[in-house]
Amino acid sequence: MNSKKKSLLIRPSFVAPTIASLALLAFAAAANAQPPAPSAQPLRLMPLPSSVQTGQGSLSLNAHFHAGFTGNHDPRLDAALDRFLARLDYRCGGIRRMQHDAAAGASNLLTLQVAGPGAAIQNLDEDESYKLSVTPQGATLTAANDLGAMHGLETFLQLVNMENGGCQVPAVTIDDTPRFRWRGMLVDVVRHFEPVDEVERTLDAMAIAKLNVFHWHLSDDEGFRAESKKFPKLTETASGGLFYTQDEMREVVAYARARGIRVIPEFDMPGHSTSEVLAYPEYGSGEDIKTVHLSYEDPRAELDPSNEKTYKFIDTFVGEMGEIFPDDYYHVGGDETEGKAWLANPRIKAFMDKKGFKTTAELQTYFNQRLLPILAKHHKKMVGWDEILTPGLPKDIMIQSWRGLESLSAAAVQGYTGMLSTPYYLDHQDTAEQMFLADVVPSDTKLTPDQQKLILGGEICMWAEQINPSTIDSRIWPRSLAIAERFWSPQSDRDVPDMYRRMRAVSLELEEVGIRHIIGPKTLRRSLAGSTDPEALDTFASVLEPVSFGDREDTQHTDAFQSLNRLVDSVVADPPARQQIARDVNTLLSTPHSPEAALAAMRLRHRFESWQEASPSLQALCQRSSRLNDAADRAHQLGQLARAGLESLAYLENHTAPPAGWADQQTSLLADVQKPSALVKYVFLPDLEKLVKAAATR
Amino acid sequence: MNSKKKSLLIRPSFVAPTIASLALLAFAAAANAQPPAPSAQPLRLMPLPSSVQTGQGSLSLNAHFHAGFTGNHDPRLDAALDRFLARLDYRCGGIRRMQHDAAAGASNLLTLQVAGPGAAIQNLDEDESYKLSVTPQGATLTAANDLGAMHGLETFLQLVNMENGGCQVPAVTIDDTPRFRWRGMLVDVVRHFEPVDEVERTLDAMAIAKLNVFHWHLSDDEGFRAESKKFPKLTETASGGLFYTQDEMREVVAYARARGIRVIPEFDMPGHSTSEVLAYPEYGSGEDIKTVHLSYEDPRAELDPSNEKTYKFIDTFVGEMGEIFPDDYYHVGGDETEGKAWLANPRIKAFMDKKGFKTTAELQTYFNQRLLPILAKHHKKMVGWDEILTPGLPKDIMIQSWRGLESLSAAAVQGYTGMLSTPYYLDHQDTAEQMFLADVVPSDTKLTPDQQKLILGGEICMWAEQINPSTIDSRIWPRSLAIAERFWSPQSDRDVPDMYRRMRAVSLELEEVGIRHIIGPKTLRRSLAGSTDPEALDTFASVLEPVSFGDREDTQHTDAFQSLNRLVDSVVADPPARQQIARDVNTLLSTPHSPEAALAAMRLRHRFESWQEASPSLQALCQRSSRLNDAADRAHQLGQLARAGLESLAYLENHTAPPAGWADQQTSLLADVQKPSALVKYVFLPDLEKLVKAAATR
Repeated sequence: MNSKKKSLLIRPSFVAPTIASLALLAFAAAANAQPPAPSAQPLRLMPLPSSVQTGQGSLSLNAHFHAGFTGNHDPRLDAALDRFLARLDYRCGGIRRMQHDAAAGASNLLTLQVAGPGAAIQNLDEDESYKLSVTPQGATLTAANDLGAMHGLETFLQLVNMENGGCQVPAVTIDDTPRFRWRGMLVDVVRHFEPVDEVERTLDAMAIAKLNVFHWHLSDDEGFRAESKKFPKLTETASGGLFYTQDEMREVVAYARARGIRVIPEFDMPGHSTSEVLAYPEYGSGEDIKTVHLSYEDPRAELDPSNEKTYKFIDTFVGEMGEIFPDDYYHVGGDETEGKAWLANPRIKAFMDKKGFKTTAELQTYFNQRLLPILAKHHKKMVGWDEILTPGLPKDIMIQSWRGLESLSAAAVQGYTGMLSTPYYLDHQDTAEQMFLADVVPSDTKLTPDQQKLILGGEICMWAEQINPSTIDSRIWPRSLAIAERFWSPQSDRDVPDMYRRMRAVSLELEEVGIRHIIGPKTLRRSLAGSTDPEALDTFASVLEPVSFGDREDTQHTDAFQSLNRLVDSVVADPPARQQIARDVNTLLSTPHSPEAALAAMRLRHRFESWQEASPSLQALCQRSSRLNDAADRAHQLGQLARAGLESLAYLENHTAPPAGWADQQTSLLADVQKPSALVKYVFLPDLEKLVKAAATR
Repeated sequence: MNSKKKSLLIRPSFVAPTIASLALLAFAAAANAQPPAPSAQPLRLMPLPSSVQTGQGSLSLNAHFHAGFTGNHDPRLDAALDRFLARLDYRCGGIRRMQHDAAAGASNLLTLQVAGPGAAIQNLDEDESYKLSVTPQGATLTAANDLGAMHGLETFLQLVNMENGGCQVPAVTIDDTPRFRWRGMLVDVVRHFEPVDEVERTLDAMAIAKLNVFHWHLSDDEGFRAESKKFPKLTETASGGLFYTQDEMREVVAYARARGIRVIPEFDMPGHSTSEVLAYPEYGSGEDIKTVHLSYEDPRAELDPSNEKTYKFIDTFVGEMGEIFPDDYYHVGGDETEGKAWLANPRIKAFMDKKGFKTTAELQTYFNQRLLPILAKHHKKMVGWDEILTPGLPKDIMIQSWRGLESLSAAAVQGYTGMLSTPYYLDHQDTAEQMFLADVVPSDTKLTPDQQKLILGGEICMWAEQINPSTIDSRIWPRSLAIAERFWSPQSDRDVPDMYRRMRAVSLELEEVGIRHIIGPKTLRRSLAGSTDPEALDTFASVLEPVSFGDREDTQHTDAFQSLNRLVDSVVADPPARQQIARDVNTLLSTPHSPEAALAAMRLRHRFESWQEASPSLQALCQRSSRLNDAADRAHQLGQLARAGLESLAYLENHTAPPAGWADQQTSLLADVQKPSALVKYVFLPDLEKLVKAAATR
């Protein structure tokens, strides 16, 4: 990280403050001598650009505004500029009127200098860099093609502020280029279907995050979601009516291209193929399949690698989909093939014997080797999960690693290109911090520079067992902003508090394009409470997060019929309160006599009091409501934890020691509340523990 | 209103209470002897059915559930049942699993007995009644056709409660039939365009409100929104790219039919026709039109009634649209034709002279008479605004009145069918109460019973000068629920507090189908405040409402380039706080020594304190933000009004008289804050005035 950029990040971060607390903090910050900052407030850029140099003054967007082009570009950039103007107008007001009123020959306040339109089919090798220069007189955005220009427009929007009674952009020079070329987001639309609206909304937000690959997981045991005209039974029998027509898929591809995003379809083979085998049993391995995998009793099936007809089916299907999805790459899945039905089928077993295959893995390698010429015939490169990496495959396949860095590195050492997904499974419910710090190529990597070049990037994974159209946004966002920054920004970018500061600001930008990460959970809480103002439930939810995929799956079996309408669905991973409480406890304990510590103690007291007030009515609500019954214990605990917090604060403030047994009581409480309950966890326990310990050792 | 139904409505209403205040009120209610209610809580049905009889006990939906049909129906009712099950599942959980697990021959817990599928093209004469009988053993929904059955499913959902730790429906017998056959909602998609998503979301909510006509205002001076293949220039030149394709219009018609809603297109003629004349000047009256009417300087145009080619154009166009919109009725607009260009055009003037027309109204009558055979040829009945009612038109046209009850009655006296819209213009920002009490056929009507039969119903009007896709929901809902009840429920249904109680409850149902009336304004406030938790701004907005259409138009000229992103767009007409404050002030003053009065005083004090706390940070925010600059005065006033309220409460509580001059000061403040500012008004001024007066006369 260079020093120019770093100078923008020195201010303390605070997250989602109330206006009142903001005013207090500003007062405290002024009282506390800080080195003078180069601009009135730190920039809110995310992902962090590779280089930012601040200048003097600001460009005002209030007096007049006009944006226009020099150079050559695709019509998609005109549309991108229109969207940009609409968002700028929403923030500043009057922008579209100024743009309309400006005479045809008006000089531009924002000039887009774009060298060329970019490739007809977006590819991995296109230059995505841009340069943005803002002075009080005007702004210039320079890029080699539409892709860089679109990234630059997003950056421009993040620079806009309305802090001095006007709409303005600080003088700045930004020179930006991505660290990785493959910055993807997988969305599983099988386990729960996501209509086109949700897909397009996700693409809008991906553009803000400068992600550039949409990996569309379109088939699995639970359903087949892509219309095939050659094999119509795929959706007729295996979609439950929930699928994309070919027109819709083309629309999504165009929508993505218009935002600088490639679309890679995944049709998982030869495992995860129950839906195909339901539709066309003749390509299966002899399983008796009566339904897609909807509930836990339903069996699963796999394609038959020993059957020549299977390859004809795949050939025809890839040809059909290859026209809808023009990208160079095609994802064949390949993960978690069990091969049980293969061994149980005498014909397949005989085939294995004949070929000398001792394991089902060898049979899968054979299958992959058969796929390669089919993909090549349709001008597609193969991408697949770790399992496709078996001896004998050529080097031009690409590995997506769900097994981890080691597996990915092993592939690179062998000369295969790859990308990382393991740390970025959103349904593990990890914090933004954890995922942000997990690097695709860590600084201590043992890979040579040439091997490192084979690591093309990473993909965020949103599996759909535990999401639906109402909750998908709050599971993907805002945490994915942090991962997207990992894929885009320099390796040295590891300032966690600053990342959170910027992530909370960009949260509001996500709302501008319709992302429902804030309103979705809140709407569900209104429904749970049966009230338009579910105050106590909001207080409760603000300090809870969902358990991980596995912990929920063990308890609830989230199959197609599981209702996703409970407390766990109305809370988010890594909520703002986690960092707020951690910061306050840290301030209180590390600088005990400072004004900041007094403010932190006050905020903590207010918070604990709000828990204390909420707890009884929450318990009553949980008794009444069938959807909240299982959370009654948690609601009771909230009151106990509030008391632990308030008592700790009192002992610390009064400089008195707690009575004998108090510390043990609190330790026992803290152990107790960590037991699984209602599929949610408290987010502040380590910090409350610190507070209790500090009080106990006074 | 019969006594059976009335017995359900005797409980006091309270609106959007916090959980804590609920608990307190429940306590207070228990302490205060009330006549025993027949069920644990009053029903939340809206629109109110014509007859409701409560029984003993409840039907539990937790142990097992299965819904199914007897009789004959259209596939749309299967789809409606699926949507019903999804919503029931969202509320109760486990419903879809139970529906799936039930054996094929399982006895139904909810049986739909539907006699027949209803007409292929929905019409005015279809029977929309239904009967719903619920006992602890099961539920039966009986209807003559799909329409009644769909209404009954909505009623069933409104009966569901989760109050005793389970999901249940109270035993009840409901016999329901609408008062009026035409219960419409006009949505103007011209002044601001609404994409198909917004249209379909509106249809979803209309189904909840049991509205049955979607009046689609598709053309006007500001644009042409319907694709014509015969006249492609209409959208090529006059839509700015914002229009519906024919496929999309067919999709909307099908979507509406699936919900028991007819779609009536309106193509306004011969006035409000600038978009047509821009595209095809040969049908205009000689105006020089270079753009649709986007800003206030752009001129407007009208079709030329003297030109035979105009009628050929209309004939071909009606033929084309008539196939897309199969309804019997076709809306020709006809309002506000100025005729200036007619008089200015020598050719048209000569035509008028030749025909002996002295006024442009006579020329418009001629135009309408020419339209009639064209519509008849395409099997359409004519609907138009008041102005089409001129001597010489046949009786089978229908009048939509924007001029008022008198105009509508005059039409009925002449034997014309009609419907009322005047009191239901949502952009007048009237309260739900005002619109609910404005009857289509008031009890003191002078019309004979036969003439009354000619009044088919009414239409809510959502004109689009001051809305966009982000704000439309909060302008339409929840107030339209109250109007929809006026159209559906008996004339005697005029209990305003109970209407509000039910309206707030059904607000949450609207959220279930995706209506953004709560989240839209809140999202805009987050953007205005630049914070994920805009607490002070929420407090502010909770007691403000937008000024009426005219008051805003005078100040702001809401043309196509006006940014709709300010405080006025983030507040709603008739917010819950209006009734809450009115109720509390009334309780406090009318029963001064009761426990209820003490509770009311406490709530008022908390509210005034929250204003006092919010005011300074709001003022700071308004100084900083260019979008809130004009609201700084209002923010300052909030603090002054808080002090007036707190001081009034103190004088009342302490039984002391205020000092000399205090009352005058408050009167002057109250007069001052009524002056126009920032396009918003306070909603509590009459009640604060009552409080001040009571304190002053102590």
